Amino acid sequence: MRVSVIGGSTVSAAVYEQAVKVGRLLAERDHTVVCGGLGGVMRGVCEGASGGGGPTVGILPGEEVAAANEFVDIPIATGLGHARNALVVMNGDAVVAIDGGPGTLSELGLAAVYDRPVAGLGTHDVPGVRQVGTAAAAVDHVEAHA
Amino acid sequence: MRVSVIGGSTVSAAVYEQAVKVGRLLAERDHTVVCGGLGGVMRGVCEGASGGGGPTVGILPGEEVAAANEFVDIPIATGLGHARNALVVMNGDAVVAIDGGPGTLSELGLAAVYDRPVAGLGTHDVPGVRQVGTAAAAVDHVEAHA
Amino acid sequence: MRVSVIGGSTVSAAVYEQAVKVGRLLAERDHTVVCGGLGGVMRGVCEGASGGGGPTVGILPGEEVAAANEFVDIPIATGLGHARNALVVMNGDAVVAIDGGPGTLSELGLAAVYDRPVAGLGTHDVPGVRQVGTAAAAVDHVEAHA
Amino acid sequence: MRVSVIGGSTVSAAVYEQAVKVGRLLAERDHTVVCGGLGGVMRGVCEGASGGGGPTVGILPGEEVAAANEFVDIPIATGLGHARNALVVMNGDAVVAIDGGPGTLSELGLAAVYDRPVAGLGTHDVPGVRQVGTAAAAVDHVEAHA
Repeated sequence: MRVSVIGGSTVSAAVYEQAVKVGRLLAERDHTVVCGGLGGVMRGVCEGASGGGGPTVGILPGEEVAAANEFVDIPIATGLGHARNALVVMNGDAVVAIDGGPGTLSELGLAAVYDRPVAGLGTHDVPGVRQVGTAAAAVDHVEAHA
Repeated sequence: MRVSVIGGSTVSAAVYEQAVKVGRLLAERDHTVVCGGLGGVMRGVCEGASGGGGPTVGILPGEEVAAANEFVDIPIATGLGHARNALVVMNGDAVVAIDGGPGTLSELGLAAVYDRPVAGLGTHDVPGVRQVGTAAAAVDHVEAHA
Repeated sequence: MRVSVIGGSTVSAAVYEQAVKVGRLLAERDHTVVCGGLGGVMRGVCEGASGGGGPTVGILPGEEVAAANEFVDIPIATGLGHARNALVVMNGDAVVAIDGGPGTLSELGLAAVYDRPVAGLGTHDVPGVRQVGTAAAAVDHVEAHA
Repeated sequence: MRVSVIGGSTVSAAVYEQAVKVGRLLAERDHTVVCGGLGGVMRGVCEGASGGGGPTVGILPGEEVAAANEFVDIPIATGLGHARNALVVMNGDAVVAIDGGPGTLSELGLAAVYDRPVAGLGTHDVPGVRQVGTAAAAVDHVEAHA
């Protein structure tokens, strides 16, 4: 399936490593990573998925595909600004949220609107998010509920 | 100024009345109400603003302006679905959130992304929202911080 | 009704004057002008409508309402870039096209997609556009076919 | 490079075959096909590209990836309706237009807005489109000008 991974664009090394782990696991289990295509958690999850052999889709806010991080295989330019957050969530069968600020919060709201199961790793504690403690638990959760 | 009022599309009579009060106060203080144009809080705030003599803008998810509630003076069709939530928030200098579910949560995230001051009446308790107890306190807050 | 007026953002004085005439006539006949909110034909039609006492809606490509020309009464920020062209056309019951380049061409295509009647003044000669010679003929045409 | 192929969603067998040829050639020359993901020319070009071993991206108007034709490898749901036409064009380095009605016309306008080279096969005769006679000539043209 396709899993949207959301989270902050500027993150600590520890959060980045967690994103890499999630990406690697998703790819190893034959899932496609969808994300916002930029830095931080978005870059980490793509780096991990690349290491795991999996394809990565980056749905970008701007009009230029060149803005995608180097681990995005299929960049999609939108030119929609933050309205593209809806497309990031819509294109996953499930969502993993890692850390994140207000942009991630908007995506958690949209995930509930679109009725996607969500696993959270150190992210906002809002309705619809199942908080888990490890990358493996996050992937297990979305596999079980999508 | 323009104030985006966000909240659930299906609400109790008490919540509806609070939306009416917020809309009336905003209009009486010469502010323009911007909302999502549909039912519940969106209809209540427009009804209140109409009673207060003020103009109301409804930014709709669909392609048909006919979907707007009867108190919307200026309906804007978008055809963007839930991605239109970004436009609702973007078009206010400040935001008042009343009750609401996941769609409102996504708008609260976007309000923080766009750096809008937000007053909350019985809505999600997330960063950036100043929780207040009355319609007047909500309007006071956004007037003081926009 | 609402009439979307489309055309180039940089135009000659003669084209600008024609846009002013169209805007004035639309307002005098109690129609609301919808446009892209920027310069050239968009500014001219708003200036004319203002002179005629009518309200003007400007649906902008960017996130800032401050980009609207000075004759826009109700600016709507979208942040959608050129994808906002769809919203400009969608929000009129009919379309008047004056001059214009490729952006206008995209809107003429969308006008046909949304099945709007279109009057053209010196614009692209494409299917669905009734070419007319004067501002009055343009307004007559859209009044007769919307 | 990536090439956006645009055209009608309901087409004759001859037009469909031409779309298949264009898709196959693009894939054989290591280009990625981007299209609107639905039927007609969009399906034909994806079928051809699949036969040529190439990946296909379908940028859909609706919220459901299931609407994609069976030859789309990477469906992207947008929920934007016709506003998604901007994304289809934006995501190609060049454009091939085959036949097509008003939706295609809107995309030809946007292609000029985004300054993409365009080869046309039996499509609208508008500024910026180089009319060619064969699938090979279309692919040659976009290779030479992107």
